[in-house]
Amino acid sequence: MSEGKTIDKYNEVLGSGGFIKLLGIEILELSETGAKGRMPFDAKYCNPGGSMHGGCLYSLADTVAGTLAYSKGFDVTTVDGSMHFLEPAVNTEYIYCTANIKRRGKHLVTCDVEITNDSGDLLDCGIYTFFKLSD
Amino acid sequence: MSEGKTIDKYNEVLGSGGFIKLLGIEILELSETGAKGRMPFDAKYCNPGGSMHGGCLYSLADTVAGTLAYSKGFDVTTVDGSMHFLEPAVNTEYIYCTANIKRRGKHLVTCDVEITNDSGDLLDCGIYTFFKLSD
Amino acid sequence: MSEGKTIDKYNEVLGSGGFIKLLGIEILELSETGAKGRMPFDAKYCNPGGSMHGGCLYSLADTVAGTLAYSKGFDVTTVDGSMHFLEPAVNTEYIYCTANIKRRGKHLVTCDVEITNDSGDLLDCGIYTFFKLSD
Amino acid sequence: MSEGKTIDKYNEVLGSGGFIKLLGIEILELSETGAKGRMPFDAKYCNPGGSMHGGCLYSLADTVAGTLAYSKGFDVTTVDGSMHFLEPAVNTEYIYCTANIKRRGKHLVTCDVEITNDSGDLLDCGIYTFFKLSD
Repeated sequence: MSEGKTIDKYNEVLGSGGFIKLLGIEILELSETGAKGRMPFDAKYCNPGGSMHGGCLYSLADTVAGTLAYSKGFDVTTVDGSMHFLEPAVNTEYIYCTANIKRRGKHLVTCDVEITNDSGDLLDCGIYTFFKLSD
Repeated sequence: MSEGKTIDKYNEVLGSGGFIKLLGIEILELSETGAKGRMPFDAKYCNPGGSMHGGCLYSLADTVAGTLAYSKGFDVTTVDGSMHFLEPAVNTEYIYCTANIKRRGKHLVTCDVEITNDSGDLLDCGIYTFFKLSD
Repeated sequence: MSEGKTIDKYNEVLGSGGFIKLLGIEILELSETGAKGRMPFDAKYCNPGGSMHGGCLYSLADTVAGTLAYSKGFDVTTVDGSMHFLEPAVNTEYIYCTANIKRRGKHLVTCDVEITNDSGDLLDCGIYTFFKLSD
Repeated sequence: MSEGKTIDKYNEVLGSGGFIKLLGIEILELSETGAKGRMPFDAKYCNPGGSMHGGCLYSLADTVAGTLAYSKGFDVTTVDGSMHFLEPAVNTEYIYCTANIKRRGKHLVTCDVEITNDSGDLLDCGIYTFFKLSD
């Protein structure tokens, strides 16, 4: 994490976005090469069937990986992101996401992500690509 | 649309899921091969920068395509979905999603999706795959 | 198609790459917004089971979409590409690919692709993203 | 690796497919949860620019991950696969691919893949999903 920003500072910026606040997403860890975040499990984030909606899981991953891509001081925009849903997200207090840099290029940053529950079970995996805006 | 269900009936089922209700997603059209839905644009669905969060757009697409996959009477679960973010979602009253069947197989259903604004400009595109759960 | 290049000229450049020659890929049509190409079906391009290997289909799509992205005079490199395999590629003389521009941005070009057989049946679909190298 | 098959046996089956033979792909390691394979770097597998064609890299990954998915005795077909191209594949004798199981379900198997060169540098990453055909 460069630029002397603390994790609290990142969470303050993220929380200023209505949707990240709505989902209760927070960043827990952030380094040059990886990030970890979480959001609470709640009925308001669920499908009719009672598991967390895939779009919540995607939002969490996009936010955690995006913060990692952004953490070098460049603003970024998501180019694309794919998510593979392996197991339903149920019976957990929080949903966790870890993101790791696969490549940090001049213009593009690629991260892989893993979503887990309280027990550390792998629920989802995916890959996100970001484009660096203003240099 | 089989099973004699009306679109109102689908929206009633979808609305029973907390997250779909939270996003204000509604299905507008539904046929054997295509579906259309929308959600309102609002600051509470936005990034810190003021455009709609990619996770909202992904959620809308997952919901519309999932309803299309489900509309033949099988419950479905999302296997994977990728989204490509082409233009920022801003300055629009609603965000629209159309989904079309690419293949409806015995076990798997594949749809492509397009996200547009009030003016019909293409904002995002993607592909979702669903697995039919045993009936 | 800009720069006054004919399709023959594009095929000449593509054919200078060993792999495109090995697969017998040729561009048939090329415009500002779309491209079409084909490759022959042959046992040497097949899986042990007798259908064309997914990697061949991916290579055809990457080449046709890449030519479309490149056709404005910028060299491009593939950022990512996903392919969804809907039906096996068998019993056909040629495999065809059409690519269409979803967005041609300053730095990135996104195309969707469809693979069909002699009868025009849809076999595969996907989305490719390209990055424009410095002009 | 179940069913008492040796790696030689897998390579024999794979080699009976024309395309896998054409690319010179061979499996080097295979366990319950992971596989490794390689193919030679050669001008005949390259783009006009001299780097290995993305379709070759995709083919290698599809073959290695597919063998891993198949290695429990079920025949499989690729549902979808995405590849993210991070660095050009040049100046190497072989291209290597490792695949790891993310989930081995009743019907679907999901693997992630990494492509590396002789020096172990990461060149590409991706995720593949396979469907188990009737047992």
